Amino acid sequence: MILVHHLRVGRAVFTVWLLEELGLDYDLKIYLRDENGRAQADLREAHPLGKSPVIEDGDIKLAESGAIASYLVSHYDTEGRLSPPMSDRAAFARYSQWLHYSEGSAFTPLLMKLLLLREQEPKPPVISGFAAGEVALHLGYLRDTIGDQPFLLGDQFQTPDIGVTYVLQLARRVGELGGYPTLEAYVDRNLARPAFKRAVERSGEQMG
Amino acid sequence: MILVHHLRVGRAVFTVWLLEELGLDYDLKIYLRDENGRAQADLREAHPLGKSPVIEDGDIKLAESGAIASYLVSHYDTEGRLSPPMSDRAAFARYSQWLHYSEGSAFTPLLMKLLLLREQEPKPPVISGFAAGEVALHLGYLRDTIGDQPFLLGDQFQTPDIGVTYVLQLARRVGELGGYPTLEAYVDRNLARPAFKRAVERSGEQMG
Repeated sequence: MILVHHLRVGRAVFTVWLLEELGLDYDLKIYLRDENGRAQADLREAHPLGKSPVIEDGDIKLAESGAIASYLVSHYDTEGRLSPPMSDRAAFARYSQWLHYSEGSAFTPLLMKLLLLREQEPKPPVISGFAAGEVALHLGYLRDTIGDQPFLLGDQFQTPDIGVTYVLQLARRVGELGGYPTLEAYVDRNLARPAFKRAVERSGEQMG
Repeated sequence: MILVHHLRVGRAVFTVWLLEELGLDYDLKIYLRDENGRAQADLREAHPLGKSPVIEDGDIKLAESGAIASYLVSHYDTEGRLSPPMSDRAAFARYSQWLHYSEGSAFTPLLMKLLLLREQEPKPPVISGFAAGEVALHLGYLRDTIGDQPFLLGDQFQTPDIGVTYVLQLARRVGELGGYPTLEAYVDRNLARPAFKRAVERSGEQMG
């Protein structure tokens, strides 16, 4: 049985979502934040960085959302619903690129936006300018990539849609998604999936 | 022949380093930064985000350093020098975690440190505090992981050492590596590799 170390509220519900899409059995170990919104010392016992999600599967313990997703899909998506086959070299490379993209590129300027909201005026100009430019760049890129497709890679919901939905709901949270109706519709479509709703219910998250 | 779209000076030399470790033939297309240190419009023709590195291999065009590394090693490391075999499920999962780690986790607070150096006093307290805490967390984690091993995953240099060296030389650049002799020695050991030196020479980078 897979165990998810799950810090509530946060990123981990997106890993639980993937487990629900895969129809896997799993246990959750829930951790709570302190009054400042920070993870507490108990999570350090699960992983030295004290971050979530971390999964355990037998003697394998794994951090990094993208690596967890890659692992789960390559071992448990026996019907090949959530990724292209590795034998399709071009499609699999593109899939891998998007698995890295959400945390490797798009997340950083959105995290800066979130932290900037907590800074007093006047906001620091260098970081404000960097974050604004990068957020616009990434949201425009995602809008153009999705276009009139239902999902990132075409007609079929695949694993990278989870990471991209994660960064886009963060964009929504920091007030950046309003100018992108394509992305609003995409996020709403994904968050309406039964597997996501089961993940929210199971983990006790409160999501929009 | 693999083509690397290479913005000088920057992250791309670490992809060239991997190509040199693999002993592959490749072409470089060099792009230069403008007087403000930014990529120019020509790089947008290679990739809509205007970022580097991007590689082309036949009809495959690929961004995201971690995905590029994963692609190159899975297809061209025929002797299995730079990764564990996929059949070793635990070792390959750990390898994949570290491929995601450098850009997915460690890079963000170091980029914040770099941008904070360019902010005037007084520095913004929320972002300064976040970056300081996260940088210390990641450098301590890397120090403890490497321990007295020569490389991240043990006795053998593997692909994730390239990404981790990238973030650690950024840590050095922003003045954060001084308190970590283990990491100083690790970076020096890796940057002294003949393949890295060939990459620097070939790409015209100027590295410490």
